[in-house]
Amino acid sequence: MLDQKPESVKYITCIGAGPIGGGWAAYYLSRGYQVTSYLHDPSEIDQLEKLISNAWISLEEIGLEPGASLDNFSSTSDLSSSIERAEFIQESIPEVLELKQNLYSELGDLVDPLVVIASSTSGMSMTDISARCATPERTVVAHPFNPPYLLPLVEMIGGEQTTAQALEWARQFYLVAGKSPLVMKKEIPGFIATRLQEAIWREALHMVANDEATVEQIDQAVVNGPGPRWALMGPCEIFHVGGGEGGMGYCLDQFGPALKLPWTRLVAPELTAELREAMVDGCVEMTDGKDFTALSQKMNTGLVEIAKLKKQQSTEKKK
Amino acid sequence: MLDQKPESVKYITCIGAGPIGGGWAAYYLSRGYQVTSYLHDPSEIDQLEKLISNAWISLEEIGLEPGASLDNFSSTSDLSSSIERAEFIQESIPEVLELKQNLYSELGDLVDPLVVIASSTSGMSMTDISARCATPERTVVAHPFNPPYLLPLVEMIGGEQTTAQALEWARQFYLVAGKSPLVMKKEIPGFIATRLQEAIWREALHMVANDEATVEQIDQAVVNGPGPRWALMGPCEIFHVGGGEGGMGYCLDQFGPALKLPWTRLVAPELTAELREAMVDGCVEMTDGKDFTALSQKMNTGLVEIAKLKKQQSTEKKK
Repeated sequence: MLDQKPESVKYITCIGAGPIGGGWAAYYLSRGYQVTSYLHDPSEIDQLEKLISNAWISLEEIGLEPGASLDNFSSTSDLSSSIERAEFIQESIPEVLELKQNLYSELGDLVDPLVVIASSTSGMSMTDISARCATPERTVVAHPFNPPYLLPLVEMIGGEQTTAQALEWARQFYLVAGKSPLVMKKEIPGFIATRLQEAIWREALHMVANDEATVEQIDQAVVNGPGPRWALMGPCEIFHVGGGEGGMGYCLDQFGPALKLPWTRLVAPELTAELREAMVDGCVEMTDGKDFTALSQKMNTGLVEIAKLKKQQSTEKKK
Repeated sequence: MLDQKPESVKYITCIGAGPIGGGWAAYYLSRGYQVTSYLHDPSEIDQLEKLISNAWISLEEIGLEPGASLDNFSSTSDLSSSIERAEFIQESIPEVLELKQNLYSELGDLVDPLVVIASSTSGMSMTDISARCATPERTVVAHPFNPPYLLPLVEMIGGEQTTAQALEWARQFYLVAGKSPLVMKKEIPGFIATRLQEAIWREALHMVANDEATVEQIDQAVVNGPGPRWALMGPCEIFHVGGGEGGMGYCLDQFGPALKLPWTRLVAPELTAELREAMVDGCVEMTDGKDFTALSQKMNTGLVEIAKLKKQQSTEKKK
């Protein structure tokens, strides 16, 4: 609730029992919260419990927070009793605008206006979702990646009527809860991570559609090539390291002309002086000005661990 | 050499002393080969030795092959003596077509026609590279990812004059050498992995150019979101798992409409019945028909290890 510190939150309600809603429930339990799941249909409980107990194996392996227990979980199909003690609400119902709008219209009246309601939507704007909500000022988008109990990203943004205070409170809450919240600059379709992912996905679909590569070749190309790097660094830092001592600036000067080549179906932007500067400055700031040796060491250490992990997995497979 | 088994290769020449050529030299040394590097300029030796000894730290950590030693390394700036004992040649000179054509013209006369010459080019076709080579039938593209001593992918394809035998011999050689060769269907600009990577990269540049995200936000979005998954599975298998019991088919039916949304600047192909079938069949084949439980377990086990790795890295950082 907005009148309490994010650190003092104990009761969370997760609305929705699918892979995202259930994944959130498991995650919050692992952090020591009391969690109530709202089920649209009581019959969903079996699948939800299976999902949570499966997630629990991974969460125990990573390490539970003090007080974390599956005993702190309850569920109900009664919306008003599900939110009774809620100090924070994570909504993850299906991605159908009308369903979301109906729910937020109900929640807008039912839930104390000091309780932040965060939506896991992967592409809709809160302006649209809360269009019929009487108390939209405490609603935010908080989009996780699947599975939400293993990937830390939470992309955040408010709707037109969301207060800055509510958005900041929610960001602080996710930090306390061990997540990596990212507050976006604007409401853009697909947010940030999904846009990047969707670009790869569409290129992959084009390649299959044009018989340039098989499904298996596409996946092998990613997993054995750039994939392991992306677990450790984003595309900008990777090129910043790839540029050696010269960093991103060298990389853009060297490979800039490749932007004119048909190396993807996505047409590139003009590499203006401003864009070049934004990329170079952004990389230097992001890496605290660390030099090539430090960055490439960070990359190599991580890649060695991933290589060892894969060696182990393939040995286990052969057994 | 084409008249010997790939298993019996002992002597390799690496042409080029940059991050790719040097990375290959380090990798081959770690696999127990005798390696000679050709340096365009003798002064490059310091930088090359630094690169190799730095790579060696990672390679030792992963595990050297029997007989592997830095003592098996030599270098020279004399092209003909560099290739004297070569049973296989890995070329990694700068990506300038004229330079490559000049080199292949020389190598075409100098090198025994039974020795396969593989180019690390990241986008040029062997048809172009070997245009002035007298013996192009044993030349192939073999494109690694940086750093080549840690990432297993080698994208392969011959030029118009390359024999199927030479391409297959080289593929077998890379398998013996512990790499993951991927023979492409066609000579396409950017090959497979770089096309996919370039799509992400261009979308990222557009987002910065349009002030939709900062450099740091883009990298955080990847590293904390889809990135760790890409270390373990390609984009197709990820959606195949994401679709739950219904797999890729469910995913396409559910999220297919998102292809019409402006979730990236890359326009999507039409999701025809043929494309849907190719994606679904491809996923089922690639995963040997494994069910959702098995696939999601594989994903979770890997993500737990990556999460632990990152936890460890961030603890070390704070020290």
